[in-house]
Amino acid sequence: MNYERPQFFHLMQYARAAEGDVVDMVSGDPDWEPPTALRDGLREYADAEPDEFQYPPSEGLVELREEIAARRNVDPGRIVVTNGTGEANYLAMAAALDRNAGSEVLLADPVYPYYPGKTELLGGDTTLVPTERDGSIDPDRFREAASEDTALVLVNTPNNPTGAVYSRETMRDLADLAAEVDATLVSDEVYDHFDFTGGFESALTLDSDRVIVTSGFSKSMAITGFRVGYAVLPEQFVGGAKTRHMLVNVATSRPPQVAVLRALRGTEPEYYERVRSMLRDRVSTFTDALDVADAEYTTPDGAFYVLARFDGFPGTMANAKRLVDGAGVAGMPGETFGSARAEWFRFALVTPRVEEAATRLADYFS
Amino acid sequence: MNYERPQFFHLMQYARAAEGDVVDMVSGDPDWEPPTALRDGLREYADAEPDEFQYPPSEGLVELREEIAARRNVDPGRIVVTNGTGEANYLAMAAALDRNAGSEVLLADPVYPYYPGKTELLGGDTTLVPTERDGSIDPDRFREAASEDTALVLVNTPNNPTGAVYSRETMRDLADLAAEVDATLVSDEVYDHFDFTGGFESALTLDSDRVIVTSGFSKSMAITGFRVGYAVLPEQFVGGAKTRHMLVNVATSRPPQVAVLRALRGTEPEYYERVRSMLRDRVSTFTDALDVADAEYTTPDGAFYVLARFDGFPGTMANAKRLVDGAGVAGMPGETFGSARAEWFRFALVTPRVEEAATRLADYFS
Repeated sequence: MNYERPQFFHLMQYARAAEGDVVDMVSGDPDWEPPTALRDGLREYADAEPDEFQYPPSEGLVELREEIAARRNVDPGRIVVTNGTGEANYLAMAAALDRNAGSEVLLADPVYPYYPGKTELLGGDTTLVPTERDGSIDPDRFREAASEDTALVLVNTPNNPTGAVYSRETMRDLADLAAEVDATLVSDEVYDHFDFTGGFESALTLDSDRVIVTSGFSKSMAITGFRVGYAVLPEQFVGGAKTRHMLVNVATSRPPQVAVLRALRGTEPEYYERVRSMLRDRVSTFTDALDVADAEYTTPDGAFYVLARFDGFPGTMANAKRLVDGAGVAGMPGETFGSARAEWFRFALVTPRVEEAATRLADYFS
Repeated sequence: MNYERPQFFHLMQYARAAEGDVVDMVSGDPDWEPPTALRDGLREYADAEPDEFQYPPSEGLVELREEIAARRNVDPGRIVVTNGTGEANYLAMAAALDRNAGSEVLLADPVYPYYPGKTELLGGDTTLVPTERDGSIDPDRFREAASEDTALVLVNTPNNPTGAVYSRETMRDLADLAAEVDATLVSDEVYDHFDFTGGFESALTLDSDRVIVTSGFSKSMAITGFRVGYAVLPEQFVGGAKTRHMLVNVATSRPPQVAVLRALRGTEPEYYERVRSMLRDRVSTFTDALDVADAEYTTPDGAFYVLARFDGFPGTMANAKRLVDGAGVAGMPGETFGSARAEWFRFALVTPRVEEAATRLADYFS
């Protein structure tokens, strides 16, 4: 396995090295303020006794697991606190592949590039299943792609990059499919706080022993660098996931766990509502200006990305660099998310300058 | 793979649930104060801008890698910052096994229990090679055990649990052996700041492209819960290690990296010397009292553990529990460290009450 600097690092560096001013809409790094209680948690922890600086339980601080469990309405024993949602996905995917129930992994296309990478690391084989034009999933397409060798169906909802929020019915169909072919369904719900429809339901509500849900606080608390995530596993998967977590990482870092715990306890719903409201405004502002550029685009139901397509200008890395140099806007080329959105670009709404960005795009394409 | 709660958690819980007062010498959690600059680093970071709360580079903060590289006299490009030394060992072992140069892993007996666990996770096969009575390694024993299938020789120096510090000559012999059988030598040097001989030399001084060195700040800064470690890899291993690190963890948590960086820059050598001096005192106090108990024991050259043997009282978990209940002292049974020290107990000098503990042991065995 060779190291390939992820495409988005490559593009961010290119954008930073550019001569002119560039609006950076490449990464999924929130630009807004984390909860006040999170900062308080860090500050208080700085004065803690030495014993609070030592190993936390491998599966996570007891109080943190209890807080998460109460919110997710599950038994705390089903939760493993991980080094971000990234590790939670790694553990969940390993759990599905360790069952010796096949090696095929079904992923929705467009795909978050880490998923096929993790699949390869774990010895699985990726099959990409196209989503519909509006980003939704047709479970029948997954059923057609599935086989006896299918070990895992992994989806991300609300979705990066399409902004789709899959219905509970869709998730139920995928869970049923998993049961039919003796596979596991993993639902990555890291954008669960960014649902603009009000209709998102976690796959945990399916209450299935074939469903693993992963999530974390990177996006909801604007702390992608803290690396605090978790997996909620059916009972038969808990032991294996804890073992792997312990052997790979020993434990998740304690200071960020303490800060997240403090933020969970001390943050009102209004914090999350304010962020959603700001993102709704950014979506409208950005898409209104894209209308002027005569671009086709998605209006996200969730997460914080807009996909846009410009006629005769496919979503290649070369064109992404042209946008940086020519328009002063950096967005991810769609070709990095599999094949289904190769004509598109993904713009992350993580800057207050979304109107400026859209105006620049309109000017560039006019 | 089934989850087995590590033996030391099991024993710590037993000790905490005991009726009487128990001196806990089970875990390797330092009980002393971390560097002042580390606390300052956390405090300052609590007020950082939101962009400093986002993803650090996957391989670690640039400034942290540079600080480590300067101290280790290597190129910063060879360093991957990890979620503790535990992850560094996982990456190093995977690098050795991913070469398809065999599947056998040679480990010194007594062995730190995570090593065989990681070996199994990575699909390798463990062969335990006994150390000498004084804890030193005879490279010829490793040579006898080695075969064409040997992919990895992994040792820990200064050593947990024996307290041995391997000579540079021993490490050179092991590196030569690795070359002979086309294997990789991994030297876990997490106790590098706890050398009481003044003679410890890192395996990095061998300047071999077959040697990976792992270390971290858990012990030297008394922060086992922060999970900041690193691997120093020969160039041909860097790409693979970065890829695996990224796919498993995305990145190492940023707040502890910032705090460690601040502590590296702001901590005088006197801090480390004071801790070593305190540990030297604890060793003398504890072993003097063990003399009274007529126990055989090791006087460590490094790390902070003493192995002790009591006639007719082998180092089993059952006997460890008897010590908790009967003597009010908790130590790790030697049987949990492989087979070579099954008659012994390991006592971690992470409490100011070492004299009390030794007196209790003397009373119990008199």
